[in-house]
Amino acid sequence: MGISPAESGSPEKEQQAAGVGILLQIMMLVLSFVLGHVLRRHKFYYLPEASASLLIGLIVGGLANISNTETSIRAWFNFHEEFFFLFLLPPIIFQSGFSLSAELGTDTNLYALVFGESVLNDAMAISLYRTMSIVRKHASSAQNFFMVIFRFLETFVGSMSAGVGVGFVSALLFKYAGLDVDNLQNLECCLFVLFPYFSYMLAEGLGLSGIVSILFTAIVMKHYSYSNLSENSQQFVSDFFHLISSLAETFTFIYMGFDIAMEKHSWSHLGFIFFSIIFIVVARAANVFSCAYLVNLVRPVHRQIPLKHQKALWYSGLRGAMAFALALQSVHDLPEGRGQIIFTATTAIVVLSVLLIGGSTGTMLEALHVVGDGHDSHLGESFDVNNGYVAPSFKEDGTSGNGIKMKLKEFHKRTSSFTALDRNYLTPFFTSQNEDDEGGEALLDERISSSKRGGFLGQ
Amino acid sequence: MGISPAESGSPEKEQQAAGVGILLQIMMLVLSFVLGHVLRRHKFYYLPEASASLLIGLIVGGLANISNTETSIRAWFNFHEEFFFLFLLPPIIFQSGFSLSAELGTDTNLYALVFGESVLNDAMAISLYRTMSIVRKHASSAQNFFMVIFRFLETFVGSMSAGVGVGFVSALLFKYAGLDVDNLQNLECCLFVLFPYFSYMLAEGLGLSGIVSILFTAIVMKHYSYSNLSENSQQFVSDFFHLISSLAETFTFIYMGFDIAMEKHSWSHLGFIFFSIIFIVVARAANVFSCAYLVNLVRPVHRQIPLKHQKALWYSGLRGAMAFALALQSVHDLPEGRGQIIFTATTAIVVLSVLLIGGSTGTMLEALHVVGDGHDSHLGESFDVNNGYVAPSFKEDGTSGNGIKMKLKEFHKRTSSFTALDRNYLTPFFTSQNEDDEGGEALLDERISSSKRGGFLGQ
Repeated sequence: MGISPAESGSPEKEQQAAGVGILLQIMMLVLSFVLGHVLRRHKFYYLPEASASLLIGLIVGGLANISNTETSIRAWFNFHEEFFFLFLLPPIIFQSGFSLSAELGTDTNLYALVFGESVLNDAMAISLYRTMSIVRKHASSAQNFFMVIFRFLETFVGSMSAGVGVGFVSALLFKYAGLDVDNLQNLECCLFVLFPYFSYMLAEGLGLSGIVSILFTAIVMKHYSYSNLSENSQQFVSDFFHLISSLAETFTFIYMGFDIAMEKHSWSHLGFIFFSIIFIVVARAANVFSCAYLVNLVRPVHRQIPLKHQKALWYSGLRGAMAFALALQSVHDLPEGRGQIIFTATTAIVVLSVLLIGGSTGTMLEALHVVGDGHDSHLGESFDVNNGYVAPSFKEDGTSGNGIKMKLKEFHKRTSSFTALDRNYLTPFFTSQNEDDEGGEALLDERISSSKRGGFLGQ
Repeated sequence: MGISPAESGSPEKEQQAAGVGILLQIMMLVLSFVLGHVLRRHKFYYLPEASASLLIGLIVGGLANISNTETSIRAWFNFHEEFFFLFLLPPIIFQSGFSLSAELGTDTNLYALVFGESVLNDAMAISLYRTMSIVRKHASSAQNFFMVIFRFLETFVGSMSAGVGVGFVSALLFKYAGLDVDNLQNLECCLFVLFPYFSYMLAEGLGLSGIVSILFTAIVMKHYSYSNLSENSQQFVSDFFHLISSLAETFTFIYMGFDIAMEKHSWSHLGFIFFSIIFIVVARAANVFSCAYLVNLVRPVHRQIPLKHQKALWYSGLRGAMAFALALQSVHDLPEGRGQIIFTATTAIVVLSVLLIGGSTGTMLEALHVVGDGHDSHLGESFDVNNGYVAPSFKEDGTSGNGIKMKLKEFHKRTSSFTALDRNYLTPFFTSQNEDDEGGEALLDERISSSKRGGFLGQ
């Protein structure tokens, strides 16, 4: 939904057209939720929520196209990538990061893998797109490669730093501001929900990537700031972000469907579409299996990513919304109708993958014996993976000697893995948790590696 | 904040300008919350939250004006009444209605009075403005008066019906859909929060007033639909609406301040401003005291509105946001700079009343011995008034005879007041509450009036 002024003149008519447009959008939203719920209730996993929303958008768009609905109402339906990037995407990306509570590289849990991988994929995609856009404008070829690498790193690392910085600031604020009392719950939550958006806009304002920034803010805020909230506030903000990301995501898929039905398509390059699909599938396989192999090289045996998880990861990787938005942007960015070709190809792939693969993921996961029957395996659901949380208690195995050497050795041990660094320095600094309060299972990397005995599994 | 495209060309620059603009807005929001909190903590009731937000907006606007900030950033700050009416006002009005849980005309609680009166005032104001706009276009004078009355009633009653209708539909949905289970909390809440906005847009789409509609939807949803939610969902939606209305209201006052500093003002009619203030004060006194007198004529003695409450009501009646938005709209609607005069006068009055009266309301209320010391008397806070809730158990005092006459008499008694109608028919129909579950105090109108003995006070 873009806020573009209607062509017909008077403000009342504009307001009315806006009303009708938004009314139809809300009805489609409600319909999508209801349809998705009904489908899941009847265990019809073949057509999950995202597909339901997409279909509804396609149908309504098709009808609008045929019926030549009044231009002002149609104007309200146009999917403006600006609106998407500024208002729909931030909640979605934030929730992806916020709901990944244990991902510190030690999980073999499939959901964590798929979510984590897909959201970093999004971050990479948008950074790469922006970098390539900049490169395209400067014509020299020899320097391009290094420029690409440099700009990409600049964008990615800069955005990540901005995101992490904002997250840390918020953690300190909630630690020291003393807002975790009952009558200040509203204030505490108001401030909490403003930080992610602040992070997004800060990065955008600095010419960096808000997506990457908000992702890292989410991870940092969940890991540190969240613990500093009152219990009621914690419950509320979890539910809040879950809710707004559900609304944003459903809205997004509806509009994807709608815009696909409404836009002009360029089918003259069917070969392009066909080969894109082939190459994407092959490239993803090459990517997933080789990365998994490398990861497994450095992980202990009991925490390696099993082959069936790798297959699931390869199969279920595509997130349509980001690809769609970037493709839509390329329509404006690229000359001579090339953006149109990319848009058509991308939407074809998105629709196919959401309807076919997205639908069959449930069946596929069951076939791979990854999830049991009756378990809701819809990947769109926010799955709060809270295993592997690091307990702050740290038992030193060696003797506690006094010399500098011993202190350095101790320091090295404490920071030798990020887990240890986090547990011993970051968490106490950024949160107000008492070491004795933690009841979660301990991830005792140091113990296991130093005493070489079997220990807890990652999940 | 309006979404008007910046003048400078490229999408990246636009996105960046948007980022900076929204970043500044968020910073101002955070600052307002923090400042409001600090002031309240130091018991500095003279300058409540709304004033803090207004001041911040004024200061930032003034600075932006002086510094000639880049046009694209300034464009993002312009207060578009369209954005206000479509996105900021609905949450504010909804929350006003939603937080009035006991107002069925039986309360003497001051907060309920002030809130209820002010929000109906807003509804009246916008209906009247729209009616007058329509009248202005049709020049004949003799019919105008009747036309005004007719159009006004049409708008008001139509909007009220739409709002109540949507509210009832939502109540039935939540009663029968069986969504009040733990794993469906997100879905239940998503649907719940969509209904108010649906109601608003439905009314707007039909050319009626979304404000009036959403107000009555709020009242109906709180009274019926809310009870049909699971306990967790109830907690969440209360907090949710409180949060988004806090954000919207703070945002609104910031932008009022900003726009006041940025707009051209027409000070040539100082007399107009001066006399407007006088007339408003006088008119309000005439309105409040005579309405209170009429109300007190029909109420039992123990539930009459005391004079000190009337004075408080007279003193604290002005809600700036609606007046401001309508004044801003009149700049566009009225010819020959007349809208400018109205805008200037209105903003002057709003600023004066928010800064002077709004600030001193706390002290004033204490002086009138209405609230005790230490009690947070800031009227902007959502005050959940849950007294006077009607218990569904109904004890029949007379004999339960069988004849038609007796049945009619019983029916008449059951519906003789809205309270009874609500308790005996509406609540059981629209909610899934068991009669034995209710633990609140009973408002036993029938008992009191039929047995003529003293009973519970309204609070």
